[in-house]
Amino acid sequence: MKAVRLRDYHKPPVVEDVPEPSLSGPLDVIVKIGGAGVCRTDLHIIEGQWAEAMGPHLPYTIGHENAGWVHSVGEGVTNVAPGDTVILHPQPSCGLCLACRAGRDMQCEDAFFPGLSDNDGGMAEFLRTTARACVKLNPDTNPADVAALADAGITAYHAVRKAVPLLYPGTAAVVQGAGGLGHIGIQTLAALTATKIIVVDRNPEALELAKQIGADETVVADGSHIDAVKDLTGGNGANVVFDFVAEGGAELDAWQMTAPAGSQYIIGYGGEFRAPTLDFVGGEKNVIGNIVGTYNDLAELMVLAQAGKVTLHTKQYPLDAAVEALDDLDHGRVRGRAILVP
Amino acid sequence: MKAVRLRDYHKPPVVEDVPEPSLSGPLDVIVKIGGAGVCRTDLHIIEGQWAEAMGPHLPYTIGHENAGWVHSVGEGVTNVAPGDTVILHPQPSCGLCLACRAGRDMQCEDAFFPGLSDNDGGMAEFLRTTARACVKLNPDTNPADVAALADAGITAYHAVRKAVPLLYPGTAAVVQGAGGLGHIGIQTLAALTATKIIVVDRNPEALELAKQIGADETVVADGSHIDAVKDLTGGNGANVVFDFVAEGGAELDAWQMTAPAGSQYIIGYGGEFRAPTLDFVGGEKNVIGNIVGTYNDLAELMVLAQAGKVTLHTKQYPLDAAVEALDDLDHGRVRGRAILVP
Amino acid sequence: MKAVRLRDYHKPPVVEDVPEPSLSGPLDVIVKIGGAGVCRTDLHIIEGQWAEAMGPHLPYTIGHENAGWVHSVGEGVTNVAPGDTVILHPQPSCGLCLACRAGRDMQCEDAFFPGLSDNDGGMAEFLRTTARACVKLNPDTNPADVAALADAGITAYHAVRKAVPLLYPGTAAVVQGAGGLGHIGIQTLAALTATKIIVVDRNPEALELAKQIGADETVVADGSHIDAVKDLTGGNGANVVFDFVAEGGAELDAWQMTAPAGSQYIIGYGGEFRAPTLDFVGGEKNVIGNIVGTYNDLAELMVLAQAGKVTLHTKQYPLDAAVEALDDLDHGRVRGRAILVP
Amino acid sequence: MKAVRLRDYHKPPVVEDVPEPSLSGPLDVIVKIGGAGVCRTDLHIIEGQWAEAMGPHLPYTIGHENAGWVHSVGEGVTNVAPGDTVILHPQPSCGLCLACRAGRDMQCEDAFFPGLSDNDGGMAEFLRTTARACVKLNPDTNPADVAALADAGITAYHAVRKAVPLLYPGTAAVVQGAGGLGHIGIQTLAALTATKIIVVDRNPEALELAKQIGADETVVADGSHIDAVKDLTGGNGANVVFDFVAEGGAELDAWQMTAPAGSQYIIGYGGEFRAPTLDFVGGEKNVIGNIVGTYNDLAELMVLAQAGKVTLHTKQYPLDAAVEALDDLDHGRVRGRAILVP
Repeated sequence: MKAVRLRDYHKPPVVEDVPEPSLSGPLDVIVKIGGAGVCRTDLHIIEGQWAEAMGPHLPYTIGHENAGWVHSVGEGVTNVAPGDTVILHPQPSCGLCLACRAGRDMQCEDAFFPGLSDNDGGMAEFLRTTARACVKLNPDTNPADVAALADAGITAYHAVRKAVPLLYPGTAAVVQGAGGLGHIGIQTLAALTATKIIVVDRNPEALELAKQIGADETVVADGSHIDAVKDLTGGNGANVVFDFVAEGGAELDAWQMTAPAGSQYIIGYGGEFRAPTLDFVGGEKNVIGNIVGTYNDLAELMVLAQAGKVTLHTKQYPLDAAVEALDDLDHGRVRGRAILVP
Repeated sequence: MKAVRLRDYHKPPVVEDVPEPSLSGPLDVIVKIGGAGVCRTDLHIIEGQWAEAMGPHLPYTIGHENAGWVHSVGEGVTNVAPGDTVILHPQPSCGLCLACRAGRDMQCEDAFFPGLSDNDGGMAEFLRTTARACVKLNPDTNPADVAALADAGITAYHAVRKAVPLLYPGTAAVVQGAGGLGHIGIQTLAALTATKIIVVDRNPEALELAKQIGADETVVADGSHIDAVKDLTGGNGANVVFDFVAEGGAELDAWQMTAPAGSQYIIGYGGEFRAPTLDFVGGEKNVIGNIVGTYNDLAELMVLAQAGKVTLHTKQYPLDAAVEALDDLDHGRVRGRAILVP
Repeated sequence: MKAVRLRDYHKPPVVEDVPEPSLSGPLDVIVKIGGAGVCRTDLHIIEGQWAEAMGPHLPYTIGHENAGWVHSVGEGVTNVAPGDTVILHPQPSCGLCLACRAGRDMQCEDAFFPGLSDNDGGMAEFLRTTARACVKLNPDTNPADVAALADAGITAYHAVRKAVPLLYPGTAAVVQGAGGLGHIGIQTLAALTATKIIVVDRNPEALELAKQIGADETVVADGSHIDAVKDLTGGNGANVVFDFVAEGGAELDAWQMTAPAGSQYIIGYGGEFRAPTLDFVGGEKNVIGNIVGTYNDLAELMVLAQAGKVTLHTKQYPLDAAVEALDDLDHGRVRGRAILVP
Repeated sequence: MKAVRLRDYHKPPVVEDVPEPSLSGPLDVIVKIGGAGVCRTDLHIIEGQWAEAMGPHLPYTIGHENAGWVHSVGEGVTNVAPGDTVILHPQPSCGLCLACRAGRDMQCEDAFFPGLSDNDGGMAEFLRTTARACVKLNPDTNPADVAALADAGITAYHAVRKAVPLLYPGTAAVVQGAGGLGHIGIQTLAALTATKIIVVDRNPEALELAKQIGADETVVADGSHIDAVKDLTGGNGANVVFDFVAEGGAELDAWQMTAPAGSQYIIGYGGEFRAPTLDFVGGEKNVIGNIVGTYNDLAELMVLAQAGKVTLHTKQYPLDAAVEALDDLDHGRVRGRAILVP
């Protein structure tokens, strides 16, 4: 089968023929890929930024945002069968450790992350995953339409979902960064809360789109944005600031925009958060970490997606054009999400 | 191997030779039984009360409170290995449905209940269960000492654990019924809260024991007990009433003992709860259902047990004396819990 | 001033001249009434159903759903000033007991309920309440437009608000009873959750309206409605059933429509709830009581109302026509809510 | 009356005669002081560190940890009467803003802080506070025995209380800093949870005392303490780290000791927290701010104190010896808490 293989760091991957994956354990599932999202993390992988943390043996296949159809299943698999349309949680988990048993899949002690850890990913015709990663979809769903929700979507959804109890009527939430994840975040906020949604971004066009999908207010990040957010929140700041940027100083702006007793949710990464410990005491403010999401988060997000409450603009490329897609992403030529279709 | 077999309803089970169970799926685990608790539910099973709901094919082996040592494991089992000392969650769950993925094992769509559903139980030398039922213990734990926590213990723990956020200092909790489950409930309350623990029972001896294990106040259920509880709670009633009886009118007494904005937790069964809907409105009171508990509930309870914070008096019988043990239980001759040891 | 006075039980009240109320304590507030809702509870008061529980001395002024403008304030009042437009929480609370300090106004140890307890209500030109009952509104709000939210609205909002964490995407909620409270409930559910909203009512016209304000599915309560709800929920029943009827057997239907691990929220009253305690255990199901709501519930609901997310059809009557309005309500001639305007 | 007056920053306060305070509003309460705690914050006030933030007009009376007996009350006060024994919440709140109405007293929009803000404190014979600050005690309580719980106590209790749901059996909590607040924290953890309590401090004597009041493990902060905590927690770190130090690098150590999905609770202040935003994402870790506590926190803590579950070693000084007490505190000569007794 064809697959997008990273042979050397700092060089574009190549599309080449490799053997199809096969079942190696009783809970394994082989999925015929219908769509594989192209993510900024793929660019970071190529640049070697995850080499040390994840230690994959090169060459390997990248691609961690996958949807498709079940091709074959191990003997212990009872939740899906060949032919089922599925979207895949990016991190198959063991189902046996205390974290898994509490529903906290991301803290599983024995998980892997195809396309990121030392396991082949989904920019290929077939992918090996496990039963615990498979969320069954309506049979008529086109996997390429939803693949990007498997990682970008679940991540934004997870953070917003955790914050719902804090965002009752009369509160305000800031979404900092109106890119792919931010768009999912805005739509999820609009679907699950009646909070005032304030979107902050440098790009006025992105803010225009944000208005169409649920933003109540938009603020250009031009240096006066902290004051603008305070003006929109009676001087207090927002109850929750979702920081989808978290680098380049945005992570410090977010703290300034957070109201007393409020919380900054960090979802992006790259920068360094800094604040006097007195800030935490005087304002009783919090910083909340967020990583991807649970299996049920993905299942719930698919309910919103299939009801049309969360959508994502996509641009499809054939698998052979993977390098072009990565290049388009790197140069800001993709609106929404690039999707490879084998 | 020897096993306690129910051949006909309304007749005592017999101890007879049956084939040892064998692995039938990749997540199966065969456990060598070290102790099997004898529970009032076993008496109900023999009387045929569960025949319709559970539909077991007779003869079958009873026993749903089990601990022992892992004997063999299926090829997909990664959490335990032969020789490990384990206590068994009574209801192996699928690990794949939404309830399992949220950590709510008891609402699993594809579970079974050895010794209750149409699956052989643990009053035998060996039992077939699955990886998801096994909680690993310190190697030097004697399974017979903890087996009763596998069902009676987890059930009491689960109810108390759910109520912990309601039971801050200054509140009061009633434990109605100071039998086996009630004792675990009292000890768990003492370990996890600083609420005032009021124990209500007909039997003054049981109340004496309750005092030794954590009760702050005891009340004889002699007809004046509702008033007594009100007197001990400033006239309001208790914030939470744990009803381990739930039959014979106790389920109605419990409601009278529940304070405004409080909750009656039903754990026992047999009676009928009745109240005007106006009671729910005027007092903003709740009735909360409870069933067994989650895998993590059992794991947490074992932490308390291994720290000596929860203990249970047991009386051991050889497996051959199963009928005698059941008879002793039926006639009130067992203090604490009867345990069969193969 | 003119006021609607109940002189004798079982006779219509009369509109007559009484002295204006005056400030009697430092936190008192006199409100010039702009709108007073006519509620089914007023009919019950006239019939004497609340005589024993509340013990008002006749004659007294009824009316417990009030909005208007602040007329005068006691020396300790700092949150409102004469001229402010306000809606009034129906039960002024002490602000000093533990329940008040936890935000649970309805469990205040020292509250009163004008128009229900032995205190004059708001079907008059002026009403005495306290600072803690006043929610300040945009100055241009017409009190008559929102008065009905002061009791019917807050009650429905409170129940839904409590259930929000249970109603994540993929769940289902039943609203039983699509009258005044039910309509607020439906709109609040649509504003605060993405649950599937199923409305059950005997009246097909009420269901038609329900569809326009947020119902996803409607079911005529014709005897097959329990089965219909099960069909719409994959056979399980709903995660939450809001029972705005709670009499005439509806309170028992609601229990049948409630899914395992689900909850029946009782908001209406009049009937008797009954269920085997085994139901609570086997299904781990709950019954949750609800009464009016907190001050902050009302403040939050006003945010939804002022954003147009919750609206209520009203029919205005001059104060002199109070008896006609009560009569119209009693005979089913009011769509939405009757409002008296002095 | 005599009072401890700060006349100039950077100079010791003086004990001098000033007029007794008088009732100035209907909710005012004049309290005869029975004990006033001497706190490190008093040293900071004298050094001028709070001058800008709080802006008190000098001279003024310091002292913000107070208990005593009600002397006189305003006309709107209904919860206490002259002669009542009371401990005082340090920050009287308005009872009318949305934060107060939700029970979040510390976020009150219209509060003051006697002895810190521009209001005379309690190192005096009498203090003016309000009804909302008064927690009534058993009449036979000696105010000097409990005064230190009014600020140090409530602060530690509040942080632990918030974390209780995170600290189920099998978890671990670190208390960093075994001083006055830390001791309350340890005792509260032991009373409200069954978590493993690990205490970290530089001072082996403080650790010895910690063991006597509930610590399961102690670790000397000698540079190897992060590793030691990891060893005691299976390599993961603690689920919650209560940082009562939060300066001098402790605030960074705390982060290293925090497990994935865990939380660092900041209670002390002085340092700067710093961490890569990637840490928040990779580990899904949180930093939680904490300030003093609610009225109900203090009421609950008094339940623990009156049950003997939380105690604090105190050293009493006559009011005239205030400067000596401050000096003893500054030079580390006070074990537990210094208390001024008028």
